[in-house]
Amino acid sequence: MINETYEAMLGAKNIIRVLSEFAAKRGEEIGYENVFDYSLGNPSVPAPQAFTDEMIRLLQNEDAVKLHGYSPTLGHPLYKEKIAESLNRRFGMNYTANHIFPTTGAAGAVAHAVRAVTKPGDKILTFAPYFPEYNPYITGAGVELGVVPADRETLQINFAAFEEMLDERTAAVLINTPNNPSGVLYSEETLEKLAQMLRDASVRFGHNVFLLSDEPYREIVFDGKTAPYVSKFYDHTLSCYSFSKALSLPGERIGYVAVNPACEKADKIVPMCGQISRGLGHNCPPSIIQIAVAYTCDLTSDLSVYEVNRDLIYDKLVELGYSVVKPGGTFYIFPKSLEDDAVVFCEKARKYDLILVPADGFGAPGFFRMAYCIDTDKVKRSLAALERFTKEEYR
Amino acid sequence: MINETYEAMLGAKNIIRVLSEFAAKRGEEIGYENVFDYSLGNPSVPAPQAFTDEMIRLLQNEDAVKLHGYSPTLGHPLYKEKIAESLNRRFGMNYTANHIFPTTGAAGAVAHAVRAVTKPGDKILTFAPYFPEYNPYITGAGVELGVVPADRETLQINFAAFEEMLDERTAAVLINTPNNPSGVLYSEETLEKLAQMLRDASVRFGHNVFLLSDEPYREIVFDGKTAPYVSKFYDHTLSCYSFSKALSLPGERIGYVAVNPACEKADKIVPMCGQISRGLGHNCPPSIIQIAVAYTCDLTSDLSVYEVNRDLIYDKLVELGYSVVKPGGTFYIFPKSLEDDAVVFCEKARKYDLILVPADGFGAPGFFRMAYCIDTDKVKRSLAALERFTKEEYR
Repeated sequence: MINETYEAMLGAKNIIRVLSEFAAKRGEEIGYENVFDYSLGNPSVPAPQAFTDEMIRLLQNEDAVKLHGYSPTLGHPLYKEKIAESLNRRFGMNYTANHIFPTTGAAGAVAHAVRAVTKPGDKILTFAPYFPEYNPYITGAGVELGVVPADRETLQINFAAFEEMLDERTAAVLINTPNNPSGVLYSEETLEKLAQMLRDASVRFGHNVFLLSDEPYREIVFDGKTAPYVSKFYDHTLSCYSFSKALSLPGERIGYVAVNPACEKADKIVPMCGQISRGLGHNCPPSIIQIAVAYTCDLTSDLSVYEVNRDLIYDKLVELGYSVVKPGGTFYIFPKSLEDDAVVFCEKARKYDLILVPADGFGAPGFFRMAYCIDTDKVKRSLAALERFTKEEYR
Repeated sequence: MINETYEAMLGAKNIIRVLSEFAAKRGEEIGYENVFDYSLGNPSVPAPQAFTDEMIRLLQNEDAVKLHGYSPTLGHPLYKEKIAESLNRRFGMNYTANHIFPTTGAAGAVAHAVRAVTKPGDKILTFAPYFPEYNPYITGAGVELGVVPADRETLQINFAAFEEMLDERTAAVLINTPNNPSGVLYSEETLEKLAQMLRDASVRFGHNVFLLSDEPYREIVFDGKTAPYVSKFYDHTLSCYSFSKALSLPGERIGYVAVNPACEKADKIVPMCGQISRGLGHNCPPSIIQIAVAYTCDLTSDLSVYEVNRDLIYDKLVELGYSVVKPGGTFYIFPKSLEDDAVVFCEKARKYDLILVPADGFGAPGFFRMAYCIDTDKVKRSLAALERFTKEEYR
């Protein structure tokens, strides 16, 4: 018999995908340029030319047997070294290559990190609003996901609710800053407060509570700021990174887990990820991509468009009377819906060819998400539709 | 606390890796060209130039945002279509794109296929000698691996032992032809007999016993033959393929699961693999590799060297009095050791700079494996060492 659990999962609709498919279909009718599709978090700017050039150089000059050969189980040494060097230089860390485990994007990173620091039956806490794929990543490891309710005014950590939920079964806490879907960035003070609570809890429970930091948007930060490096604040941190967003390579599945050298059993965690990989059937990310990214890991795509888009949309939302927190990074914005049921709200918006995602699945009913990784021209054109929709439906 | 199960796995040594590292170290002393390293199954011939050309063409001409963007959850349509067409044309199947699930190599394919047709607590049977990584792939899904003892004379399926072990808890049978480590190819008669036993067992147990066919060596077949296509023989077959060997792309992690259209709930299995992927943190194999392989999936590297090597080694082993089955494919040969303890035998061989792998881990104590995916020149030079070793140690 086929597996009934996975079979049952087929019934569930992924709202983002449903909306994105609706947008594509509508595009066939009226031209996709006229569909204001804010559904998908797919980068809209190309990878740096240096990445393309490096790929071509490798294909033209390297021995194909070596280039396309198996990476060592724990990853290509060059990739591991370059990532460690880059993180050390940029964030004052002291990683060695041995603290870096290459993964297939942040999805692979979180899947490995979760298994390394939990056993089935443990609990991981995360903060609403949160990325819905945390559910399969975590339950797939037999671990329970506890969601700390959102602070609905600031979209920052709701520390009071967190304090209540943080208990002895909590093996780890999973954060995401800058945050998908809210766009908020945690400040140094927030991270310091979180770290202190984790240190206190670790003493109280007699075991370290690990911090899993999912940070694919780390380089997409606005207003001239940089994101505080989470692992600086707490020793027992596993940083989960992906080059999907900053290098615009989501399809190429390349990221890593970086284990803080001061973490409990830091030297064992990367080799353990190698063992975990065997059971997941992963093995390493693609060899050629590891090598090309090793040489370009300090670059980013031209990310400035996301800030331009944020400003346009944020200003318009405020002007129209929306309650919305100004995003500090990412390419998402997360306003409150104008009626309690954001699903209904987003359905009404579709009549104006505005594709907005209701946030129930993100653990924050009553909000909606706009992924503004789209052409600025389309953003501009969408504002009139947003205004018309808002005024006609909610005046 | 870190996960104790994975931590405990760190103690276990992978004998192939240990030997391969020994070979590399010895190479630093005497020059690697003088180490007769038969440890690793890493292809020794380059990927076809057409693959390299296609990669460069994509990088130079395609829109980078599209090229490196997320594949759809169930894989790139072009890849799925081209694979289905190729299998249909070559093997008389009737797959559609919907029956093909792209994976990160055969490891990913087996990991998904196992989860699709089992639940934790089920049992999968395989036949010794077998690829040791089946252990983590299968136990990683909470499933028990039962190993049917080898037919030590033919290295073919031991049907009598299989009949005894095939019971109601058996959810699936996992085969690998041409076989790593033995090199044997299952004939049409063997596959027909196996299929009939599975059909009978399915009726007896009241549930279909699935057949998982791991076939990364499908194109490496000798003596002008082609491998019978396993799925032709039994409806409830999931074929697990990798381009690692035939296209010499092991590091690029590209393969697929092909679900027989007549399989139980065939139309659900690929979408279920999509759900399984979320829990494993896989998502799709790299986009650019999917596209480049879509255009080159009917090609192979120049595989003729493996047959040349087989002939040289087989003839020498027979001449020296080894008991050995002539491989029908792959780049492995699997002779009986000249003493009961193959570990001791292989240790003695190391004094002659012959790196042979004892087969205890493959479920066949008393045998050893030679992976002859190495330069023919080195194979030739190794034969004198093999002769000297055999005569001096076992005359």
